[in-house]
Amino acid sequence: MQFGIAVFPSKEVQDFANDWRIRHDPKYNAIPPHLTIRDKGDLSNERLKEAVAHLDAVASTLSPFTIRFNRVSTFFPVSNVLYLALEDPLPVQQLQQAICSGPLAIPAPNFVYTPHVTIGQQMDPDELHDLYGNLRMSDVSLESVIDRVHLLHATENGFWTAYQSFQFRG
Amino acid sequence: MQFGIAVFPSKEVQDFANDWRIRHDPKYNAIPPHLTIRDKGDLSNERLKEAVAHLDAVASTLSPFTIRFNRVSTFFPVSNVLYLALEDPLPVQQLQQAICSGPLAIPAPNFVYTPHVTIGQQMDPDELHDLYGNLRMSDVSLESVIDRVHLLHATENGFWTAYQSFQFRG
Repeated sequence: MQFGIAVFPSKEVQDFANDWRIRHDPKYNAIPPHLTIRDKGDLSNERLKEAVAHLDAVASTLSPFTIRFNRVSTFFPVSNVLYLALEDPLPVQQLQQAICSGPLAIPAPNFVYTPHVTIGQQMDPDELHDLYGNLRMSDVSLESVIDRVHLLHATENGFWTAYQSFQFRG
Repeated sequence: MQFGIAVFPSKEVQDFANDWRIRHDPKYNAIPPHLTIRDKGDLSNERLKEAVAHLDAVASTLSPFTIRFNRVSTFFPVSNVLYLALEDPLPVQQLQQAICSGPLAIPAPNFVYTPHVTIGQQMDPDELHDLYGNLRMSDVSLESVIDRVHLLHATENGFWTAYQSFQFRG
C-alpha cells in the first residue's frame, strides 16, 4: 500500500491555500493543504510496523514549534508550482531529516528538501507568471504550530486517508 | 472549529465505495469513505482538550475488532442515501456509545445510530431505486479491522483534515 508523511498546517493556512488551490491545483481534491515530509512509497505490512515504531520514537523526542509563511514562491522552471514559503525553513528541514532516517531513510535523494505548501501546480507557464507576478508582491503572514505529523495512505483514486498521527512529546 | 469523529475502513472497502461515490456522492471530494462515529460539531480550544483526553481514555479501554459489510442498503425514504451495511452493527454501535459519552455526549439524540459507509447520497429517487435494485442483489463481502478512530476538523471549503488518531489499546 502507498504511504506518505505530511504535516497539516492550521485551518487559517489551509483556508488561504484552498482559495488558490481550487482553481490552480489539480490535486485540490486528493489531499488537504499540507507540507510533504516524505513522498509516497510502498510499505509492506512488516515495513509499516517498522515505520510506525520509528515515527513514534522520533515524535517522542521532538517538541512543538511555530512556522511562519511570509511569501509566495515558485519552483519554476524546475516545476510549474506556486507555493507558500517559510520565513525560516530550518526547523521543518530538521524535522524531515529526523523522520526520513532509519527505516524511512530516502536512498540517494536527488533534491534539496524545501518545505512548502503548494497552492498551484501543473500550471500553464503564462498563468503561473501572471499569478506569481501578483502574489509575490502580496503581504503574506500566516503562522502555524507544528506539533504532530501524519502517516497517510492512498486509495486507488489517488486520494489520501489518515492512518495515524504522531504527536511531538519531547 | 468544526470537528468530527470517524473510522476509516480498509483500503479494499474504500476502493469499493469510491467506485460508486465518484458518480453518486457529492461529498466524494470532501472526505474519504468512512463510518461516522460523531457528526460534526463546534469545539473551542478548551473543549477540544477535553475531547482529546476523553478519546484517549476510551481508546485505551477498547480492543481491535473486525467488521464485515455484507450488503448494500438504503435510508430511503428518510434520506436518499445508499450505503454499505454491516452484517453485525453491534460492535460499532458500542464503539459509538463509548465515544459519544462524557464531554462528547450527544444531547437528546433524535436518531437510531446505524453504522454505515455511504456510497451515494442526495440521489435522485429514480436513480437511487435503479441502483439499489441492482446492488441489493449483488454479493458484498468486505472486511475491515477497526483498531483506531480519527478526530478530524473541517476547513472552510467543507473538506476534512486529519487532526489526531486514537488507537485501541485495551
